[in-house]
Amino acid sequence: MPLWKVYHPEGAYTAEDKKAMSERITRIYRMLPAFYVGVVFQEVPKSSLYVGGEPTDDFVRIWVDHIARQFKDEEGKDQFWVAVNKVLRPFISDRGLRWEMHIDETPFSLWTIEGLRPPLPDTPAEQKWRAENKASVYEPG
Amino acid sequence: MPLWKVYHPEGAYTAEDKKAMSERITRIYRMLPAFYVGVVFQEVPKSSLYVGGEPTDDFVRIWVDHIARQFKDEEGKDQFWVAVNKVLRPFISDRGLRWEMHIDETPFSLWTIEGLRPPLPDTPAEQKWRAENKASVYEPG
Amino acid sequence: MPLWKVYHPEGAYTAEDKKAMSERITRIYRMLPAFYVGVVFQEVPKSSLYVGGEPTDDFVRIWVDHIARQFKDEEGKDQFWVAVNKVLRPFISDRGLRWEMHIDETPFSLWTIEGLRPPLPDTPAEQKWRAENKASVYEPG
Repeated sequence: MPLWKVYHPEGAYTAEDKKAMSERITRIYRMLPAFYVGVVFQEVPKSSLYVGGEPTDDFVRIWVDHIARQFKDEEGKDQFWVAVNKVLRPFISDRGLRWEMHIDETPFSLWTIEGLRPPLPDTPAEQKWRAENKASVYEPG
Repeated sequence: MPLWKVYHPEGAYTAEDKKAMSERITRIYRMLPAFYVGVVFQEVPKSSLYVGGEPTDDFVRIWVDHIARQFKDEEGKDQFWVAVNKVLRPFISDRGLRWEMHIDETPFSLWTIEGLRPPLPDTPAEQKWRAENKASVYEPG
Repeated sequence: MPLWKVYHPEGAYTAEDKKAMSERITRIYRMLPAFYVGVVFQEVPKSSLYVGGEPTDDFVRIWVDHIARQFKDEEGKDQFWVAVNKVLRPFISDRGLRWEMHIDETPFSLWTIEGLRPPLPDTPAEQKWRAENKASVYEPG
């Protein structure tokens, strides 16, 4: 469910950085099965990344699709952004990189894992997926 | 319209595999002009793909934007997922790969091909585009 | 806000082309701070790009997320497409390339720049960001 896509400058992150970032991102979603959290990193050369028409090598652009949960209110959004800023700061602004991020919310019913439609939020089946950290066949509710 | 983006492990697919997958995907949408169906494959190295915070080299992550048609009901979604699972199984689960897929539906009116806004669903103009398998100027109905 | 993603054939564009395209794209959004406009180019080899099941090396596929503004009416969309077609023509159809483009509109409240939620449209704070061409802390109105 969340799918994070991180465009970053060439050489900005080591494999260790990327593992640490993805672990920290996963922890933001601790109410979800951990394997729901996918993060894809992609280097973009300066000649292929433009901000305001200028080639850019100090900018991290993140876009995210949220599927398993929708924000219910402004308070939930505020808490989320506080968590995101805390998690990413050491890897972005503390390193002198600029950044921008946006999220879309896409339909729960148009999502599958291992060909299965994931269980509804906070159901016993979702708890089982979370405890086992993998998808399994279940009786829809 | 549909735009499929397939993130896959390095070396997972040959050009022949990718052609076969894209042909099978195109057939799912046989009511549409074939050229509406775009599929982009992208290799992601293990050090750039994380699931639940773990680097991963056995996982295919697909995200899709649907534009030309919206699902009308649950039955339509069920039929679609049956077709998708059948089409992809030989290339994913039969090869021991894990996978996840999600779809967003984006606005019909914010879509162009060759600079033209495509004809409305099931109009004579769309039939012409489908028969000729290319875009052409038409009289909006 | 707008984030443009441009998939293009290998070798289709020089760095100068890409800079010129991104400058022209930025100008479409002249009511916005210029730094809101991000453009990411990505080469896709023929063996990884399929249209209607056929490998393709003459096709540019653009997808865009709009965040800072939503279209209000059909007239606004028409004007936008006229501008886009004019801007892109020298780089796509005039070079014998085919193309397709679609836009999604994503939630304003799920978007940050430098960890800040951008000011609402047409506020003094947004004017300041536009004039200075950078994000800064502001008093939410």
